[in-house]
Amino acid sequence: MKRAINFILPLVVIAAFMAAQRGYSQVANQPIVRIAELEIEPNQLTLYKAALKEEIETSIRVEPGVLALYAVSVKDHPNQIRLFESYGSQEAYESHLHTAHFLKYKSSTKAMVKSLKLIETEPILLGSKSQ
Amino acid sequence: MKRAINFILPLVVIAAFMAAQRGYSQVANQPIVRIAELEIEPNQLTLYKAALKEEIETSIRVEPGVLALYAVSVKDHPNQIRLFESYGSQEAYESHLHTAHFLKYKSSTKAMVKSLKLIETEPILLGSKSQ
Repeated sequence: MKRAINFILPLVVIAAFMAAQRGYSQVANQPIVRIAELEIEPNQLTLYKAALKEEIETSIRVEPGVLALYAVSVKDHPNQIRLFESYGSQEAYESHLHTAHFLKYKSSTKAMVKSLKLIETEPILLGSKSQ
Repeated sequence: MKRAINFILPLVVIAAFMAAQRGYSQVANQPIVRIAELEIEPNQLTLYKAALKEEIETSIRVEPGVLALYAVSVKDHPNQIRLFESYGSQEAYESHLHTAHFLKYKSSTKAMVKSLKLIETEPILLGSKSQ
């Protein structure tokens, strides 16, 4: 009996590891969509939007895994900003958070942002002309 | 003096008309971005998502002015749906609202939607790989 366990246990561990690996790679290849709701100090809005535009342009240009960064303001409430962010994978999303241009945007806009709400999501369907 | 007015007035009217036309065409060519926040009856969620996917797929395929329709649910709150919609112009947006597939989606999902909040926006920058 003990010999059987010695034989079966490593197989179970290997199977579990392979299943976890498979699960991980499936998750890693799913697009990541995040929504951000920000409120900006009204007297900092021009500076904030310039920093945001620079960050978006650079991310789209240099990061293959950054698929879309859409920035809008709520009509009649220009200091309420909504961001809709789409990344090719979890890895691409985490890599983005460590880029020099993202860290520069975060530090340069820190004092301009009154509030920030991040909303994690599950994609249902991301339909666009580029797909 | 009266002769001068007879001469100038038509010029002013024509200039105002041309300015209005120019303003209109500029507005018409700006992308329209709309955000929708929906809450779906939990026991209708599967049916709702099927209808939504069909509507998005058809709109992207047959309407040149529908640039993106992104549908996600809020993580851990699957019946809270967020839509991010981008249209090439005001005209494309209004045309979309009158298509057979959109009207079918609206009527077939009417009883499934507990609440719907539409948020009009002003685009700041819509960055994506397709641009």
